[in-house]
Amino acid sequence: MEINKKIIELLNSIKEKNPLVHHITNYVTVNDCANITLAIGGSPVMAEDINEVSDMVSLSSSLVINIGTLNSSSVQSMIQAGKRANELNIPVILDPVGAGATSYRTDTAKRIIDGVKLAVIRGNLSEIKTIYGVNSKTKGVDSSESVSENGNELIEEKEMARALASKLNTVVAITGVVDIITDGKTLYTASNGHKIMAKVTGTGCMCTSLIGCYLGSGDNNLLAALSGIVSMGIAGEIAYEGLDKNNGGTGTLKVKILDAIYNLSQIEIIERSKINEE
Amino acid sequence: MEINKKIIELLNSIKEKNPLVHHITNYVTVNDCANITLAIGGSPVMAEDINEVSDMVSLSSSLVINIGTLNSSSVQSMIQAGKRANELNIPVILDPVGAGATSYRTDTAKRIIDGVKLAVIRGNLSEIKTIYGVNSKTKGVDSSESVSENGNELIEEKEMARALASKLNTVVAITGVVDIITDGKTLYTASNGHKIMAKVTGTGCMCTSLIGCYLGSGDNNLLAALSGIVSMGIAGEIAYEGLDKNNGGTGTLKVKILDAIYNLSQIEIIERSKINEE
Amino acid sequence: MEINKKIIELLNSIKEKNPLVHHITNYVTVNDCANITLAIGGSPVMAEDINEVSDMVSLSSSLVINIGTLNSSSVQSMIQAGKRANELNIPVILDPVGAGATSYRTDTAKRIIDGVKLAVIRGNLSEIKTIYGVNSKTKGVDSSESVSENGNELIEEKEMARALASKLNTVVAITGVVDIITDGKTLYTASNGHKIMAKVTGTGCMCTSLIGCYLGSGDNNLLAALSGIVSMGIAGEIAYEGLDKNNGGTGTLKVKILDAIYNLSQIEIIERSKINEE
Repeated sequence: MEINKKIIELLNSIKEKNPLVHHITNYVTVNDCANITLAIGGSPVMAEDINEVSDMVSLSSSLVINIGTLNSSSVQSMIQAGKRANELNIPVILDPVGAGATSYRTDTAKRIIDGVKLAVIRGNLSEIKTIYGVNSKTKGVDSSESVSENGNELIEEKEMARALASKLNTVVAITGVVDIITDGKTLYTASNGHKIMAKVTGTGCMCTSLIGCYLGSGDNNLLAALSGIVSMGIAGEIAYEGLDKNNGGTGTLKVKILDAIYNLSQIEIIERSKINEE
Repeated sequence: MEINKKIIELLNSIKEKNPLVHHITNYVTVNDCANITLAIGGSPVMAEDINEVSDMVSLSSSLVINIGTLNSSSVQSMIQAGKRANELNIPVILDPVGAGATSYRTDTAKRIIDGVKLAVIRGNLSEIKTIYGVNSKTKGVDSSESVSENGNELIEEKEMARALASKLNTVVAITGVVDIITDGKTLYTASNGHKIMAKVTGTGCMCTSLIGCYLGSGDNNLLAALSGIVSMGIAGEIAYEGLDKNNGGTGTLKVKILDAIYNLSQIEIIERSKINEE
Repeated sequence: MEINKKIIELLNSIKEKNPLVHHITNYVTVNDCANITLAIGGSPVMAEDINEVSDMVSLSSSLVINIGTLNSSSVQSMIQAGKRANELNIPVILDPVGAGATSYRTDTAKRIIDGVKLAVIRGNLSEIKTIYGVNSKTKGVDSSESVSENGNELIEEKEMARALASKLNTVVAITGVVDIITDGKTLYTASNGHKIMAKVTGTGCMCTSLIGCYLGSGDNNLLAALSGIVSMGIAGEIAYEGLDKNNGGTGTLKVKILDAIYNLSQIEIIERSKINEE
C-alpha cells in the first residue's frame, strides 16, 4: 500500500478511536496543543501533578512529554508518567524543546531519554544534534540551523538521525524546511510546510501533539511520526495560501492552521504530500 | 417577569458594574477565560499565590475555582480564597474539571466542597455524577456521556441534580447537549449551543467564567448560572453559523465565540434562548 | 533626524538582528507575548526555572520581567536573571502588573526595582503611582484610572513620571488613552490606539514584549519604549478599523493586532504616529 493511503487510514483511525492524549507540556503553547488535538479528532488531557500523572496516563492512548517550560516538579512527573506508560505499552513522544540552549535543558532531555523508553523523539536540528552529542547552535528554543536541502550536509544529517534512532531504538524526527523521519532503517524525507510557520509559536509543539494523536491510534511509530509531520506541513500550506496578502499575518495563520487540521481530508493528503522514502 | 428579560437585565448589570472576577484556574484555557470575561463586560484577575489570594478575592465581586490543572499549592490557595470569599459573602463557583478521572481530582473536588460554601457547581454529567457519588464514565477531562435528551434517564439525571443541589445547598449546573440548572427546587433545562463546541478546548471553562461574571453582578445564583449557560450556548450557535462551510474550523470558531459574547444583545437572547422551567 | 525615522530604523534593526528576548512572565498572556515577539521579528524564549535562568538570559538580547501571575519561585528567578542581565549589560524591562492591588504585588515590584537595574518600567497609571508611592485606585490588574487627556492632572502625572525616572535612573512609560514616556529629561506623549484594546487581555503585556524587542536591537532605552508603545497603538488602530462592524469583536481584534504587527511598515508609522516631545 502506498504511504499516502497508510496516512489516510491512520487519520481515519483517529476520528474513530478518539484517543486520549496525555500531555505534560509547557504553559506557552498548551492551549494550541489542546486545540490541535481536538481538531484532528483526539481528546487532550493536561495533567502534571505527581499525585495524578500515573493514574491519568493509565487511561490514555499516548503520552506527550514537552520540556518547553520545564521545572523540577514537572520533570519528576514526566519521568514517572513515562515509566508508567512504558509498563502499560502506551507510546511516549518527547519534544526536547531548547535542548542545547541551557545545560539544564540538555541534562533533562538526557534524563528523560535514560529513564523512559520513547516511541518518537521530535525536535529541530539543533535539539537532535544536542541529544546525539555533537555541537549545535541553539538560539533559545528556536533552531538557528535547519536540515540542509541537499548536498553532503544533508547526507550527514540523515546518517546522524539513523544512528541516533538505532542507538535509542526509537523513531527520530527532525523538522525544518526538510524533515527527516527514521527508525534507523527506513528513512523518509518530507518537505511540506511554509517558512512563515516558524513565525508562530508552537508549530513544533503542535506537530508533536499531532504525532501523539497518530501514536495513540495505531501501532506503527514511524508511520505516526511521518503522518503528524505531513499533516502539520499541509495545514501550514493551506493556512498560508488562505491569508489575505494585504493584511493577513501570523495571528490569522495560527487560526487557519487549526481550521485546516479540523478539515484535513484524504484529497489534501494525496494531492499535497511531499514524501520520499529511502 | 419572564426569564429572558431577567437574563437581559443581569447582562446589562454586568456592563454597568464591570465586576472583578477572581480566577484560580488552569493554565490551558486561562487566556480564553480572561478574554471572555472582558468580552461580556467583566474584569478578570488571575492570582493564585497563597500570599495574595485573600487580598485579591477581597477586592472581587466573585471567585471562580477551576481544577483543570490542579497542584498541591494551587489547591491550598483555592480553599483559602474560597473561605475568605465566604466570610465576605462573595459568591464562589466551582468547575470540578476531570473529577472522576483520577482519585486526586475527585478528592480535591470533595475537599473544596467540604471547605467552601459554593454558589454554583458547573460540570459535565460525568463530573457531577462523581461528586454525587454514583459511578460515571469520565474520559480525561471530557465527559464520555451527556445529559439524555429525553426518557427515563433524563428524569433520573434531573432528580440527581435536584438532590445534589439540595444536599449541598447550592446551584448545580450540568452542561451538555441538554443543560440542567437547578437550586433543588426550580429546575431549568436549556438546549442552546452546537456540538462542534466540544471540539474547542475550554468552552466549559469559559462558560464557568461567564457564570462568574453574572454571579458578580446580581444576587440570584440560579439566574446567574442559567444566564451564563444560555449566553455561552447562543454564542456557540452564532459562531458556528458564521463559519465558512468550506474551510472554517475550530480555530475560527473560538475567535467567533469571543466576538459573539462581545456583541451579545437583547434581541439574540429573546430570539434564540431555549429554556424550559419545571 | 525626526522621531518617526528613528523608530523605523529601530524596527528594521529588529528584523535584521532577530533579538532573543527572554521572558519571565505570567501564564495568562504568555502565548500572545511569544507570538507578538515573533510577529515583529524577535525570537522569544520563556524560561523561569532557577536552574536555567542565568544561562538563558546570558544568551539573550533583552529580558522581560512581568509579574502578572507571580509566585515565590518565579520571583526568585526574576531577580536572579535580572542581576545576571545587569552584569552583562543586557537591558531589562519590568511590567509591574497589578502593583497596588495586593501588598504582595506591590512589595514584589519594589523588591525587583531594588535588586535589578531596569532599562524601562512600563505600567498603567495605577501601577506607576503605586511604585512612586502615591495612593492609587487599582482594580485587580486593570487600572481604574488613566492618564488625563489635559489640564492640571496631566501636568502632575508628567511630573510624577519624570521624578520617578530620575530617581530610579530608568525610563518610565505609562500607557493609557494618553501615554507618557520619559527618561526624566526628555518626555514624549503619544496617543495612538483605541479604547477597545482594553477589552483584550494582554495588550499591556504584549506592549512590554514589543519594547523588549526594541531594547534588544539598539542602545536607546527611551526610543525603545516609545517605539514599542507607538507600534502597539498603531496595530490596535489598524485591527479595530479592520473589524466587521456587525459581528466583529474582541476575538478577531486580538488576531488582527498580531497581523498588524507582522505587517507593520514604515508608511504606517509615518502616517499614523501621534507623538509629542517636550
